Amino acid sequence: MDRIDTIDSSASVPERLARAAKSSELLSAVWSLPPAQRLMFHHGMQVTDVEGDSTPGFDGNKEDAEKFISISSSEIARYQRLMYANGVKGSTRRLLIVLQGMDASGKGGIVRHVFSQGDPMGIHYHGFGKPTAEDLDHDFLWRVKRELPKPGWIAVFDRSHYEDVVMPHVYGTYPEDVWRARYDQINDFERELAASGCAILKIFLVVSQEEQKKHFLGRLDDPTKFWKFDISDLEARDRWDEYMFAWQEVFEKTSTAAAPWYLVPADNRWYSRAVVSELLRTTLKNMNMTWPPLEPEVDPDEVRRRLA
Amino acid sequence: MDRIDTIDSSASVPERLARAAKSSELLSAVWSLPPAQRLMFHHGMQVTDVEGDSTPGFDGNKEDAEKFISISSSEIARYQRLMYANGVKGSTRRLLIVLQGMDASGKGGIVRHVFSQGDPMGIHYHGFGKPTAEDLDHDFLWRVKRELPKPGWIAVFDRSHYEDVVMPHVYGTYPEDVWRARYDQINDFERELAASGCAILKIFLVVSQEEQKKHFLGRLDDPTKFWKFDISDLEARDRWDEYMFAWQEVFEKTSTAAAPWYLVPADNRWYSRAVVSELLRTTLKNMNMTWPPLEPEVDPDEVRRRLA
Repeated sequence: MDRIDTIDSSASVPERLARAAKSSELLSAVWSLPPAQRLMFHHGMQVTDVEGDSTPGFDGNKEDAEKFISISSSEIARYQRLMYANGVKGSTRRLLIVLQGMDASGKGGIVRHVFSQGDPMGIHYHGFGKPTAEDLDHDFLWRVKRELPKPGWIAVFDRSHYEDVVMPHVYGTYPEDVWRARYDQINDFERELAASGCAILKIFLVVSQEEQKKHFLGRLDDPTKFWKFDISDLEARDRWDEYMFAWQEVFEKTSTAAAPWYLVPADNRWYSRAVVSELLRTTLKNMNMTWPPLEPEVDPDEVRRRLA
Repeated sequence: MDRIDTIDSSASVPERLARAAKSSELLSAVWSLPPAQRLMFHHGMQVTDVEGDSTPGFDGNKEDAEKFISISSSEIARYQRLMYANGVKGSTRRLLIVLQGMDASGKGGIVRHVFSQGDPMGIHYHGFGKPTAEDLDHDFLWRVKRELPKPGWIAVFDRSHYEDVVMPHVYGTYPEDVWRARYDQINDFERELAASGCAILKIFLVVSQEEQKKHFLGRLDDPTKFWKFDISDLEARDRWDEYMFAWQEVFEKTSTAAAPWYLVPADNRWYSRAVVSELLRTTLKNMNMTWPPLEPEVDPDEVRRRLA
């Protein structure tokens, strides 16, 4: 938030990049407006107005974005380690990233790129598929709570508890009063989670129908992508407008101060990855974490004598 | 195993590296003997004979090792993706890496380096600490089973069910007949796990007492490492010989064809990381995985028409 004042938006990206001497300056040089401000859901915003192929706030090109992601990823890795260290020493600080988006919006690839310098020790990825019989025996948040980040950890949800509102909304698989009640349950759950030390980033990747088509066709042509092709994805595509309607309601009901939604154009993968990297980096940075001290009962000189 | 014939051990590493034109050749050029053969536990081997600062089978230097790890890590990332894709399509192939070693043997750092190009989607890291009250209400393998890799995934255990034999052995916290019975229980468990499609790599990192001392002292001097210092680690150090005795018995009782132990000298981190990277790479390579085909019910032409 504070960085908006430091961005000289009258200069072009190449000019800003050239001026930025240190990598820490490079990190802000690519943004004409911080994505947290530009993309956070706000009253009156319509998901159908977000153009998948736009790149708001970022007027550089793919190469600039990749340079940015590489530097940002290294900074994220440092913060991740810092948060992990604090978790070991009793801090409850942790981070949950919820990734949603239509099929082929790039949910999987984002994780790989944003954490390209991350440490498996401290990152927990979980994909939520169709609920199992055991899941259905419990409250819809039961399976979600089992996958939450431990202290000092980052959890990435590929799909989430939001499917338990959107799917019944689109397909009518639950009575309306049941799934509608979930908005409040989710808000309560996320508010408590945030209050207990867990930062929450909810990201909806906006892919255009045209771009989705390209990816689906690509999966039919490339043997290394056959495994990604799922015929049922076509059914969801046929109900595109109903999905957008259901998601719009989700944003309106559940974008809160504690757990805001970000609507991120995702036709250009380099853009959506740069945005998620920046959201993550600034969230971690704003935690203002420091390295934990030695335990007070540890006397370094005594330990040195004991080791001598 | 087959690569031993292709290694010309009469040539020096620089000569072999210079001759290796492709990166795939580079991968074998650094080894005068594959670590799987040199370091696998066998009858008569004594952990106390393994020198922490040795680098058996690898006669290159730190720089060669880092070059190797970088190339190997990229290959591991490809295999990881392949295994993940097969997991999505119903294969039960998966991999469990058990990391053990005295404190400061480098268990944590190895994960970061070996998977430096890995994808959080498919890697599950879990550190086993002191059992919780809930853990103790169950069989000792209960908490282990909960963290096993899902189909297509790699799980990394930082410590493991082996602590449930070694700790009672060293500290006498359980009756001998209880913890001794666990050897058979572990062997049965691991044999079934392997038979169900899970490859198992059990790695014991051998650090010397001298090297451990250096790391402990480093943790007292470097504020970014204070969090790693745990006064109770000194107690384990004081019982070094008892630990080695307990581990020796573990290797003798539980190094099986399905789940062998590797004793890896770890004073030189570049060496132990290169070894683990190579063990992992060859294990994945030997799975001979291929990309899964399209589901038989998918007619690509029909899908293309539907998308048009």
